[in-house]
Amino acid sequence: MNEALQTSNLQDCSVEHLHALSQQRLAIEGVNIEIDGGRFAAKAVAGQPLTIEADIFSDGHDLLSAAVRYRMRGGDWKEAPFRFVENDRWRVDVTFERPGDGEVEIIAWRDVFGTWQKDVGRKIAAGQDVAVEIAEARLLVEAASQGGGQTKELHAALVHAEGLELLEILRSPRARMAMAAGGPRTDLTPYARRLAVQVDRSLAAFGAWYELMPRSQAEVPGQHGTFNDVIARLPYVRDLGFDILYLTPIHPIGRTNRKGRNNSLAASPGDPGSPYAIGSEDGGHDAVHPQLGTLDDFRKLVEEAQAVGLEIALDFAIQCSPDHPWIAEHPEWFDWRPDGTIKFAENPPKKYEDIVNVHFYGSSNPSLWLALRDVVLFWVAQGVRIFRVDNPHTKPFPFWEWLIAEVRQVDPDVIFLSEAFTRPKVMKRLAKLGFAQSYSYFTWRNTKVELQDYLEELNDEDTRLVMRPNFFANTPDINPRFLQTAGRPGFRARLVLAATLTGNYGIYSGFELCEAAAVAGKEEYLDSEKYEIRHWDFDRPGHIKDDIRLINRLRRDHPALGPLGQLSFLNFWNDEVIYYARQEPDSASYLLFHVLLDPHNAQEGDFEVPLWEFGQPDDGSVMVEDLLHGNSFTWHGKTHRLRLDPHTRPYAIWRLHMEGRS
Amino acid sequence: MNEALQTSNLQDCSVEHLHALSQQRLAIEGVNIEIDGGRFAAKAVAGQPLTIEADIFSDGHDLLSAAVRYRMRGGDWKEAPFRFVENDRWRVDVTFERPGDGEVEIIAWRDVFGTWQKDVGRKIAAGQDVAVEIAEARLLVEAASQGGGQTKELHAALVHAEGLELLEILRSPRARMAMAAGGPRTDLTPYARRLAVQVDRSLAAFGAWYELMPRSQAEVPGQHGTFNDVIARLPYVRDLGFDILYLTPIHPIGRTNRKGRNNSLAASPGDPGSPYAIGSEDGGHDAVHPQLGTLDDFRKLVEEAQAVGLEIALDFAIQCSPDHPWIAEHPEWFDWRPDGTIKFAENPPKKYEDIVNVHFYGSSNPSLWLALRDVVLFWVAQGVRIFRVDNPHTKPFPFWEWLIAEVRQVDPDVIFLSEAFTRPKVMKRLAKLGFAQSYSYFTWRNTKVELQDYLEELNDEDTRLVMRPNFFANTPDINPRFLQTAGRPGFRARLVLAATLTGNYGIYSGFELCEAAAVAGKEEYLDSEKYEIRHWDFDRPGHIKDDIRLINRLRRDHPALGPLGQLSFLNFWNDEVIYYARQEPDSASYLLFHVLLDPHNAQEGDFEVPLWEFGQPDDGSVMVEDLLHGNSFTWHGKTHRLRLDPHTRPYAIWRLHMEGRS
Repeated sequence: MNEALQTSNLQDCSVEHLHALSQQRLAIEGVNIEIDGGRFAAKAVAGQPLTIEADIFSDGHDLLSAAVRYRMRGGDWKEAPFRFVENDRWRVDVTFERPGDGEVEIIAWRDVFGTWQKDVGRKIAAGQDVAVEIAEARLLVEAASQGGGQTKELHAALVHAEGLELLEILRSPRARMAMAAGGPRTDLTPYARRLAVQVDRSLAAFGAWYELMPRSQAEVPGQHGTFNDVIARLPYVRDLGFDILYLTPIHPIGRTNRKGRNNSLAASPGDPGSPYAIGSEDGGHDAVHPQLGTLDDFRKLVEEAQAVGLEIALDFAIQCSPDHPWIAEHPEWFDWRPDGTIKFAENPPKKYEDIVNVHFYGSSNPSLWLALRDVVLFWVAQGVRIFRVDNPHTKPFPFWEWLIAEVRQVDPDVIFLSEAFTRPKVMKRLAKLGFAQSYSYFTWRNTKVELQDYLEELNDEDTRLVMRPNFFANTPDINPRFLQTAGRPGFRARLVLAATLTGNYGIYSGFELCEAAAVAGKEEYLDSEKYEIRHWDFDRPGHIKDDIRLINRLRRDHPALGPLGQLSFLNFWNDEVIYYARQEPDSASYLLFHVLLDPHNAQEGDFEVPLWEFGQPDDGSVMVEDLLHGNSFTWHGKTHRLRLDPHTRPYAIWRLHMEGRS
Repeated sequence: MNEALQTSNLQDCSVEHLHALSQQRLAIEGVNIEIDGGRFAAKAVAGQPLTIEADIFSDGHDLLSAAVRYRMRGGDWKEAPFRFVENDRWRVDVTFERPGDGEVEIIAWRDVFGTWQKDVGRKIAAGQDVAVEIAEARLLVEAASQGGGQTKELHAALVHAEGLELLEILRSPRARMAMAAGGPRTDLTPYARRLAVQVDRSLAAFGAWYELMPRSQAEVPGQHGTFNDVIARLPYVRDLGFDILYLTPIHPIGRTNRKGRNNSLAASPGDPGSPYAIGSEDGGHDAVHPQLGTLDDFRKLVEEAQAVGLEIALDFAIQCSPDHPWIAEHPEWFDWRPDGTIKFAENPPKKYEDIVNVHFYGSSNPSLWLALRDVVLFWVAQGVRIFRVDNPHTKPFPFWEWLIAEVRQVDPDVIFLSEAFTRPKVMKRLAKLGFAQSYSYFTWRNTKVELQDYLEELNDEDTRLVMRPNFFANTPDINPRFLQTAGRPGFRARLVLAATLTGNYGIYSGFELCEAAAVAGKEEYLDSEKYEIRHWDFDRPGHIKDDIRLINRLRRDHPALGPLGQLSFLNFWNDEVIYYARQEPDSASYLLFHVLLDPHNAQEGDFEVPLWEFGQPDDGSVMVEDLLHGNSFTWHGKTHRLRLDPHTRPYAIWRLHMEGRS
């Protein structure tokens, strides 16, 4: 070693570095809930299991143990053991009981005593002498027994034992358990990062939304609706089975450059303007539009809704009308042009002259940020816990990350829904920043391949752990081209798809009436409520309220459709019929859906009954309940044929069950 | 804001946090070279481009710019601009010129002036007045001109311009370039992590290995070979076209419990023992086995090899024979049993009584770690730059991470090859720790599906950026079952596959003779050189040296087979023939390979000529050169038929070219 030894000092920090590094003997990697290297939190739901997985391994062939430590931030740690799955993958389910900010740590260690048991078993089987091995195990137990408890009892038992009895004790499950509980955690290795988990309440992951414009809810046509009129609509919305009633903005509407009917540039006298042009002499984001009522009326609406089991969601739209009080009070929050005029919103060459945007940097930081946070907290103080955020992708990402964290500090029950029909990576980033739900591309996915590919993408673990899609079937901004020509069969099909492919879905008032009158060539509603007051007859012929009631009831009654329900697509040999299963693992809840994608023609084809899910051979059978008609029967064999008709049967829903399957 | 304002102080650190967070306005994520959240370095090759990709986007619709900053650790930063690809993905190639530790940072910012040019163009096209926009642009340029340079010149040009001329200057590419170079980087956002890149020399990514046992190289049968005998073999190895000559351990061999021929437990007198039982009274890991020669002889071998264009690779096997000097000098580095005996290596119930293992923790840390590092540095000092590491997966991961980093500090040209035929995640972890090359499962991948799936896995970006497989076709430990019965056609096929599917490959001496005599029922060689001295006739009939020469020449001559050559599998409608292309992008180098997987029967089938790669329609044509026979001709049309025969033509290699394709 003569020459070599001279190099021992080549790095001053070498030995310290070596010591620090050598603590990490086990490898922990590929942690499924680590989002972007720990930059963002994974999402979980209070009271529901979060499955955590990691690759855990070490050098050599020793047995390992691993555990997850978890808590709500600032609380006490709990520990749960990982179980080995395969190929160095380990898994554990943990449940956070309340919404808030969860934290997770992972630890792993070498199970020296378990390894001893494994090795000594093999040696005995091979007829080898294990006298020295017994001596080694005694030393392990003796050292562990200093800590008291089970290991002390184990050690005491060893002291008086001899020969075969000694070996029997050492090889017993009891000894293994005692040493696992009280023995040393050799080479204990913590995972390098503590991981954050955003724990939301269950409504963040599973809810049915109904959207309406309050001013269109008057009983008398032509009158401006009020909060009291919305209160009168609550039984209707609840009867349809919805969980959330979402109101478009309720704030004073600007007069300068007000938009007229059908988005015309000049309003006529009496035109109410777009509720998204927020702010007038009557106030801004913390005021209510006087024609809707008072703040007290609004609070009453929140209470009445709660009384019938509905929650009110508000729209959080940051733009201002040119009449917003902030423009005079805080000119430094807006962009001013060299000619002294205020900069209107634009997407060149389009101009939006009824709206000005705040800017978020320079003189607006932090005063505007704090003010906007306080707007949200103001409505939280009025009892609102759900906010649909308008166009979040045009406001800075750091703003949302900060705002959502601040609001969740005050009330972790608050849910933010991101309205961002934008580029997929932007949509996902907003979810990572803390939005509990995200608008999605569902609205434009119509064919079987499109739907299946999109659902696969959404259910990919990387996406699933951060983004919860909300399948809105229509919105005030989107009158989908498909529905414009699909008629009632198309509405029924899209309802079933929206409500059963994922946990959150919504419809915008009028959907239940199959309303689809469009501005020619556009995805806009004709005579849109965005620019005028409408009045609807919610009993008009051709409605699909029975379908909505049925589907929302199934969502509540069947765990397969609940937050833990898993989706899988099955074979139907006709691309105009989509066919899928929802099931809750480890339960008897198993549903099948056939939905007709062609709204004009009947379609039929063969399909596979998933007998394999019930442990049945291809010529086996399974009991079926038709959830639309209530009759029950048995499917024998794997292949069956079905015909769906747009007018009589655009979809079918089946519950499969077998005696003995639990 | 009355009630809400009271909440403004709810978090003391709120405003500071807001300020820090708001600096990160742009999103930078999905960085391809970030390994495990930045925990490990990505791998690159000196002098060859490393492609870096990231998702980069911001709120809103402004144009963005982004750049990578890179350097060797401690050196000066260089900057290279990212270019936009699609779907918010950006890409840039950077080249590190020398081996060592590279570092990469990513920055992005809003391109305010570029956005102005884009928007004003749209407004002019829509016939809108842009007088105020011009005033805005003048302000941007004026502010930028304070920095001097091109922006100052631009500003000077504006001062004297008016009307259309002014607009023309502002909209010019020259203005864009001046503002890009000298204008502000608005909302400059650095990626949160500085990323490490392990820059290796090119031999780490592309080399052909020949492995031999020095003691079997004597000219006279029965004699113990010497380093001088190995020197005499250098022209042979070089003539075959190899780059690296790898020697099994050259150290003194222990006598206690020495293994006999064919791994028998008791050696007969005169049995040389396994070279992996390292250490005797003649020395340990820094000594040479006296029968091989002296350290001076070894240094001469290193020099002579270098003179003919070969590099010597040594085996680094940490285990010790019971006679290793360390056992007396450093008993604290070994495991001792309660009965006072040393603990032999074992994998219960198997025992390896000619070997004891060091342990790495407790009393061995750090003294053993430093000693082992110094063993490597000792051989580096003798001119060795390549180490094949025996069984690295049974030594702690932190040890390798530390040792490789230490050695690379002294000489970044040193290459470590990880011999770990182990679980896939363990194999990959070792690569992440710094091993430049890794043994692979190629040795056991025989069918078309197995080979294609495995290559796809290896070429997946997550793997490709950290692990460079070395396709050894055989080793002293592995006499593959396929080759035991495949005969000469099988050896020829496996040679072509090993040498052309990836950058690094190797054969162990005897492969060129189609040597496959096995211990019955095992993957062991009969009369293995591991336990006895062998003597080979390297001209014996049935050798495949011509194939080896050809393939190694093609590897050197054709960039498509080089480190930048890409692999893709093509359609051949017979599963007994594997058919693939190698190409170097942006070059004329395009090769096709047909390899017969069935060593016993002729096979034929139709295959697709990749005319699309040459911009040709299905009925187009491409020029072809048969690289085995030298003749050239033209393939017309997309589908052709080929027959391969195990005895006359077990593989075919074609070069495709077209005039005009560069």
